[in-house]
Amino acid sequence: MFVKETTKGMRDILPREAEIREYLLAKMKKTYAAFGFSQIETPCVEHIENLTSKQGGDNEKLIFKVLKRGEKLNVETDNLNVDDLVDSGLRYDLTVPLSRYYSNNASNLTLPFKAMQIGPVWRADRPQKGRFRQFVQCDIDILGDPSNSAEIELITATSTYLESIGIGGVTIVINDRRILAAMARASGFAEESFSQVFIILDKYDKIGEAGIEKELLESGYDTDCVAKYMEIFRGAMAAEDRFAFLKEALGESIEDGVVDNLLEIVKAVDVISDGRFNLRFDPTLVRGMGYYTGVIFEIKSEDFKGSSIGGGGRYDNMIGNFTGQKTAACGFSIGFERIVAALVDKNFKPSGVDKTAVLYDKRMSVSDLALMQKAAMAARADGKIVLVQKMNKNVGFQKQKLEAEGYTKFIDIRYPDEMSKLEEI
Amino acid sequence: MFVKETTKGMRDILPREAEIREYLLAKMKKTYAAFGFSQIETPCVEHIENLTSKQGGDNEKLIFKVLKRGEKLNVETDNLNVDDLVDSGLRYDLTVPLSRYYSNNASNLTLPFKAMQIGPVWRADRPQKGRFRQFVQCDIDILGDPSNSAEIELITATSTYLESIGIGGVTIVINDRRILAAMARASGFAEESFSQVFIILDKYDKIGEAGIEKELLESGYDTDCVAKYMEIFRGAMAAEDRFAFLKEALGESIEDGVVDNLLEIVKAVDVISDGRFNLRFDPTLVRGMGYYTGVIFEIKSEDFKGSSIGGGGRYDNMIGNFTGQKTAACGFSIGFERIVAALVDKNFKPSGVDKTAVLYDKRMSVSDLALMQKAAMAARADGKIVLVQKMNKNVGFQKQKLEAEGYTKFIDIRYPDEMSKLEEI
Repeated sequence: MFVKETTKGMRDILPREAEIREYLLAKMKKTYAAFGFSQIETPCVEHIENLTSKQGGDNEKLIFKVLKRGEKLNVETDNLNVDDLVDSGLRYDLTVPLSRYYSNNASNLTLPFKAMQIGPVWRADRPQKGRFRQFVQCDIDILGDPSNSAEIELITATSTYLESIGIGGVTIVINDRRILAAMARASGFAEESFSQVFIILDKYDKIGEAGIEKELLESGYDTDCVAKYMEIFRGAMAAEDRFAFLKEALGESIEDGVVDNLLEIVKAVDVISDGRFNLRFDPTLVRGMGYYTGVIFEIKSEDFKGSSIGGGGRYDNMIGNFTGQKTAACGFSIGFERIVAALVDKNFKPSGVDKTAVLYDKRMSVSDLALMQKAAMAARADGKIVLVQKMNKNVGFQKQKLEAEGYTKFIDIRYPDEMSKLEEI
Repeated sequence: MFVKETTKGMRDILPREAEIREYLLAKMKKTYAAFGFSQIETPCVEHIENLTSKQGGDNEKLIFKVLKRGEKLNVETDNLNVDDLVDSGLRYDLTVPLSRYYSNNASNLTLPFKAMQIGPVWRADRPQKGRFRQFVQCDIDILGDPSNSAEIELITATSTYLESIGIGGVTIVINDRRILAAMARASGFAEESFSQVFIILDKYDKIGEAGIEKELLESGYDTDCVAKYMEIFRGAMAAEDRFAFLKEALGESIEDGVVDNLLEIVKAVDVISDGRFNLRFDPTLVRGMGYYTGVIFEIKSEDFKGSSIGGGGRYDNMIGNFTGQKTAACGFSIGFERIVAALVDKNFKPSGVDKTAVLYDKRMSVSDLALMQKAAMAARADGKIVLVQKMNKNVGFQKQKLEAEGYTKFIDIRYPDEMSKLEEI
C-alpha cells in the first residue's frame, strides 16, 4: 500500500526552502573554494565497522543499518542475529568518512589537504521540533597541518562565509582542551575525573557559575578542589587579560606555548579581518565530542539569541586511531539546518535574479507559444528567470501564488497581436 | 576493524572530479531555474512499500534495505524473516519519491508544477566499469500539464543545458508509445504481445532491421504479422516525411492527433531554438521503463559515439497509480554520471576563476602570515581563488601538483620584505 508521508522523522523540502538552501550552499562553496578548499564526496553508505569504532560517541547508537545484499539471508533456518544481517549503515557524520577517505586516497592528495565536504547524514534520533533524521552537514577540514595556521584559516573562512550571507552579531568563542585540562589539574582533580568535570562545565551557559559549583560538590568532589577550580574560573572570567591571568594561574600545570598559541590565533584573525571578526577566549567552552585534542571553537550569533550555529576544533589523534598513521587534523562545521530554519522563519528571499512570469491565454496556438518561448529564451540567456505558463481562470489568484514564489513581473498575452509585449522581459 | 576502502561498488570522489561535478550541477541548476523549474528535495530513505509497488521494474530487485529501528529485533526467539526486519530502503530513482512528494504536498504546490530534483540514488547492481551503486540523478518533471507544451519545454530546457556545457552533436530522438502500439496493432499483433515486441524492437541499435525481423520470427510470431510490421518500419525509416507516411500507413490503428502532436513538438522546438536543437522522429525508439504512456525521447550525442546521455517521456498514469488521483506527468532525466565520466576522461578544466597559490617560507612568523592572509582576503572578495600554503622543500614538485589542481599563478614569499608581491594577486 502506497504511503504518501515521508518516512518517520524525515521531510520533503518545498520549493521556497529549497531556494534558500541552494542560495546558502552556492555561496558557501564559492567562499570556501576561494580559500583553496577542495570539494570531496564520500558515499552515504559506510562500513558498519567504521561507524561503530567508538569515535562517534552517542551517534553510534543512532545508526540506520543497511541489510546485506546478494546472499540469501535465511533468518529462520540459519539462526542468525541482527548483526549477522548488516554490513553497512548510513553515515552519521562527515568526519568518520573523511578519515576513511584520507587513508584510502592519501597518495592522490597533496598535504596539507584542505577538504570541503557537504552532504546529508542520518541519525535515528527521537523526532522533535526542528530536528530531523536526515540533515545536511557542511564541513571544512585541514589535514596534515599541525600549526595554528590551520585554525586561523578555518576561522577566517567560516567568518567570511557567515558575513557573506548576512548573519549578524557573530562571535567565535575559542578555547583549548589543554587549558581545560590544566585548570582541572591545577585545582587538584584526578586525571580520570576530567571528562566528568568537563561534562558539568559544559552546562555553564545554562546553570551559571553557581550551578557548576553546586553540581561539582554534589558529585562528591573534594571541597578544596572545587573551591580552587572556581577561583581560577572566576579570576579568568573577570580578568582584563585572560591569557595573562591563566598563564600565571596555571603555571606548571599547562604545557609551554598552549596559551600563546591561542593568543596568536586571536591576534591573527583580528589583523586578517581588520577587526571585523570577533573572537572571544572563553575558558568555559567545552564542546561535546571526546575526540578534540587542542584548540576548540564555537560560533555564537546574536541573530540566534546567542546560541551556537557551528563549531569545531583540532582532533590530531582521530585519523591515527582509524588508520594507524598519526595525522594532524582540524575542522569546522557550520550548523546549516539551523541557519536555513532561521531564514525560512523570517521569510528570507534570496535576492539577485529577476523573475518574470509570462501568462498566456489557453486558446493560443502551439506555434504562437513557440514564439513566446523563443522570446523567453533570449531573456534567459541574459541570466533572467522566465516562466511561461497558461493563464488560469482566476488569474489574480495565480499571480498571488507566483508572487509568493518570488515573481515580480507579469506579462499577460491574451491575443497573438500582444506578442510584442515580450520585448519588455 | 577499520576498513579504508569504500563499501562495495561505491566510490570516493577526488577533488578534480568533484570540481567538474560542481561545475556541471551549478550550470544545470541555473539553466533549469531560468525556465522556472523549482528545486525540490525528498529524503533518500523511502518507505519499502513505495519502493516495491511494481512501478520500478527491475530496479526493485536492487534495493538497499534499511533495518527497522527503535524496537528490539529479536530474530532468534521471535522467528522473524527478513521482511519483518525492514521498513524502508534507499530510493533507486527520483520518480517514485516525486510521486510521493506530489501527493504529500499538492496543497502547497501550484499546477502545473515544474520540479527539478537532483540527488543520489542507490542500486545494488553487480559492480562493473563505470557503474556504481550510488550515483546522482538529475530530473526535471512537469506535473499537471497534459498538453505538449510540457514536452516542448522539457526538450528545450535540456537542450539549452547541454549546449551551455559544450556537449556537441546532440540529437533528441523522439517517438510516442501510442505510435509503437499502433504499428504493432496495424500489423496484426495481439495486444498482450506488444510489450515483448517492444523489448525486441528496443535492440534495433544493436542488431538492426534484419536482426529484429529474425528475432520476431524466432519468437514464434505469425509470419504475416512480422512481414507487415517490417514493411511499415522500412517504409517509415525510408520516408522523406515520416509523419505523413505513418498517418497514412497506420490509418484507423492510431488515435487522432497522436502523430500531429509529435509533429507540433518538432516544429515548435525548431522555432524556439532557431534551428539549433536537432530533433529526429524515430519510430524504433522504445525506452525501457514500462510506465510511459505517450511521447518518449532520448538524447544522443556524437561526443558520446551516438549513445544515449539521457531520456524521458510522458507517464500520465504513474502518479494516479500511486495516489489514486490521475495527474498528467512528463519528465526528462540527464545521464549525469556519463557526462562527468567523459569530461574527466578528456581532462576537462572548468574555466573561469583565476587560481593563485601564495607559497611562503616556513620561517615566516604568524603575524606575517596574517598579513599575507589579509592580502589574500581582498583578492578573494574580488572573486579570485587564493590558496596560502607553506612552501615545501621541493617547491618545484609542489607547484606541479598545484598546477594539476588548476593553479596558474604562483607567488613565492621567502622574506617578510617580499610581502609587496602580494599586491599582484
